[in-house]
Amino acid sequence: MADSHPNTRLEAFCDGVFAIALTLLIIDIKIPASEGIDTTRQLWRALGHLGPSIFAFVLSFAIILITWVNHHASFKLVNKSSASFIYANGFLLLTVVFMPFPTALVGEYLLTDHAAPAVVIYNSLTAVQSVAWILVSGTALRSHLTKDEKSAALMRDNRRNGYLAVVVYSLLALIAVWFPLAIAIVTTMLWAYWLTFSLRAA
Amino acid sequence: MADSHPNTRLEAFCDGVFAIALTLLIIDIKIPASEGIDTTRQLWRALGHLGPSIFAFVLSFAIILITWVNHHASFKLVNKSSASFIYANGFLLLTVVFMPFPTALVGEYLLTDHAAPAVVIYNSLTAVQSVAWILVSGTALRSHLTKDEKSAALMRDNRRNGYLAVVVYSLLALIAVWFPLAIAIVTTMLWAYWLTFSLRAA
Amino acid sequence: MADSHPNTRLEAFCDGVFAIALTLLIIDIKIPASEGIDTTRQLWRALGHLGPSIFAFVLSFAIILITWVNHHASFKLVNKSSASFIYANGFLLLTVVFMPFPTALVGEYLLTDHAAPAVVIYNSLTAVQSVAWILVSGTALRSHLTKDEKSAALMRDNRRNGYLAVVVYSLLALIAVWFPLAIAIVTTMLWAYWLTFSLRAA
Amino acid sequence: MADSHPNTRLEAFCDGVFAIALTLLIIDIKIPASEGIDTTRQLWRALGHLGPSIFAFVLSFAIILITWVNHHASFKLVNKSSASFIYANGFLLLTVVFMPFPTALVGEYLLTDHAAPAVVIYNSLTAVQSVAWILVSGTALRSHLTKDEKSAALMRDNRRNGYLAVVVYSLLALIAVWFPLAIAIVTTMLWAYWLTFSLRAA
Repeated sequence: MADSHPNTRLEAFCDGVFAIALTLLIIDIKIPASEGIDTTRQLWRALGHLGPSIFAFVLSFAIILITWVNHHASFKLVNKSSASFIYANGFLLLTVVFMPFPTALVGEYLLTDHAAPAVVIYNSLTAVQSVAWILVSGTALRSHLTKDEKSAALMRDNRRNGYLAVVVYSLLALIAVWFPLAIAIVTTMLWAYWLTFSLRAA
Repeated sequence: MADSHPNTRLEAFCDGVFAIALTLLIIDIKIPASEGIDTTRQLWRALGHLGPSIFAFVLSFAIILITWVNHHASFKLVNKSSASFIYANGFLLLTVVFMPFPTALVGEYLLTDHAAPAVVIYNSLTAVQSVAWILVSGTALRSHLTKDEKSAALMRDNRRNGYLAVVVYSLLALIAVWFPLAIAIVTTMLWAYWLTFSLRAA
Repeated sequence: MADSHPNTRLEAFCDGVFAIALTLLIIDIKIPASEGIDTTRQLWRALGHLGPSIFAFVLSFAIILITWVNHHASFKLVNKSSASFIYANGFLLLTVVFMPFPTALVGEYLLTDHAAPAVVIYNSLTAVQSVAWILVSGTALRSHLTKDEKSAALMRDNRRNGYLAVVVYSLLALIAVWFPLAIAIVTTMLWAYWLTFSLRAA
Repeated sequence: MADSHPNTRLEAFCDGVFAIALTLLIIDIKIPASEGIDTTRQLWRALGHLGPSIFAFVLSFAIILITWVNHHASFKLVNKSSASFIYANGFLLLTVVFMPFPTALVGEYLLTDHAAPAVVIYNSLTAVQSVAWILVSGTALRSHLTKDEKSAALMRDNRRNGYLAVVVYSLLALIAVWFPLAIAIVTTMLWAYWLTFSLRAA
């Protein structure tokens, strides 16, 4: 199942996709059209309306960055590769590449009274991303790609965290049907906590 | 013809192009414009209309990912480079970079009654991509870039598969003139089969 | 705090983000729409109106390039990594990724009589970028990631320059509220000086 | 002037920019808007109008690819770096990143009777790109970055070719003021010759 070539090229490919997905987020923050803007005050006000877009941009940037850091840490546990591991990583990349879509949705609709679809889809995507993490960890374990017993134990932790994350994000997505704004705040706090946690744990 | 420098930089360049082409697919999934959307229900319905776009996105993502995996495997068979090999790879990259265009076409027109051009162009592009594979394998063989006799044999298999693929995708493109939807389904099943096959073969 | 793995993958990831942010700047230079253009003279005139956009493109390109060169030089001073160092770099990347937004703003509004918001935001972003530099240097010093005492001294210089830069760019952003065009010129000259300085210092 | 660190990171950065500039070319080939298209025949016709865009896409793709191959070959001649060499490369990247703009212009205006600005700007950019090549070769020679005398001789050839190219492309740009279509054909043939030449020379 697993052959012993190093993962350098897979790592570089994943890094490329993470880096591009991160950077592409900016193209959904559109500058105000110059039509209808005649004074500095009007331009400031139009820029103020970009608040939700910039919030969504920073949140998605942080999520992709944290995901990259976790990916980085996971790949230090493995020293082999297998086809199922590569495709599990491909599935993870699919969920990362998709991030700009719900990000733009949240930016456009968060402060309207029909924000629910945006927040539901946003949290559904992170739930699917957690499924991808389970597959990445699972295939690494099943194909015995981990370096040693200690790495395997850490990888099993990853998988367990993945199961937990699927449940949490699915619940958040469900509750967002009724309380989108509250869930947007909870999601932000959750990721801020993750960030603080991984800064302290290191 | 062939000089003996390693292929690291060519590999990295190709990986970059694959990674970007993959990620750029998302920018053709445009969020519904906020004008004309006044209720949550309308937003959900507008999002539902994105179905064909998301289908096309996932299919093209999978095709580029599988192509990258095959590229990855092919490059493990060679340890030298030549100008004709580099340009054959450049032609392969051209067909990969072009993918977002027919993908957007399929997303926009698949469920209309004039879907034929989209599906014809989509399958024509994969036919041209197969020609590029024949050139990549062919130049590798002709310039004796393969590592050993076993690698050369595998490369000859690649080339033969390329010829087969040209015939299959050209036929699919032709039949799509009359039955676009049916061909879209056949194409999807074909790639799903490829994915399963390469997962099992590894 | 700091573990001893090399920074190759972090470096490659940052390089990717720098390279993409640099390249994405071009997509905000839109070609003149063909409607309303009937003669060559009209097309030349419409192209002439892109002057501010091209000025902003070149300025932002130069800023990101110089930032990359500085990043390159800073990373030669460290040989370890830590979570706080990675996230400080992530914050720096956030400010780099955000560049296309104020760049497009300056391109659109610089020659109107409501240019202030564009120039204020542009200089505010470079001020925030300097804060990111302070964090990158600061975390490198606090986690003892520098190679030797000489590297640590250079890193302390970086941090001090960061503090200076925050003050300078904040002042420029403030003055731009009243004199946007003058500040745009001062900013350009400042970066031209930086470029010349780093060409001579090397 | 020149320090002795390897050029790996500069190479990787340049490769990234080349790869992204190449891939971004596709986003200016916009699919026909579904409004006003009611039959398959109308869609085919609308797709036919994309001819000049696809021609410009393939030409620019080939130019960037050939430029990358030349860059690849040039970097094999040097084993050191200097600040002026890095910024000369940065200037070369600026001209590469700018390619999508005249490419889109040519795609939009080539078959109208006001095609001159598009072709003039396209050839002016390749003239400026040749200036960048002179600077890259010149700084490499002046800072003694080349590996040995044979490499220095090849680098001097590069510089001389750069001077020739500046003259040729400037002339083409000038003549394109009166004969844009003819110059577009000459430019294409010139690059096709370059491609054939570098395929045979290798």
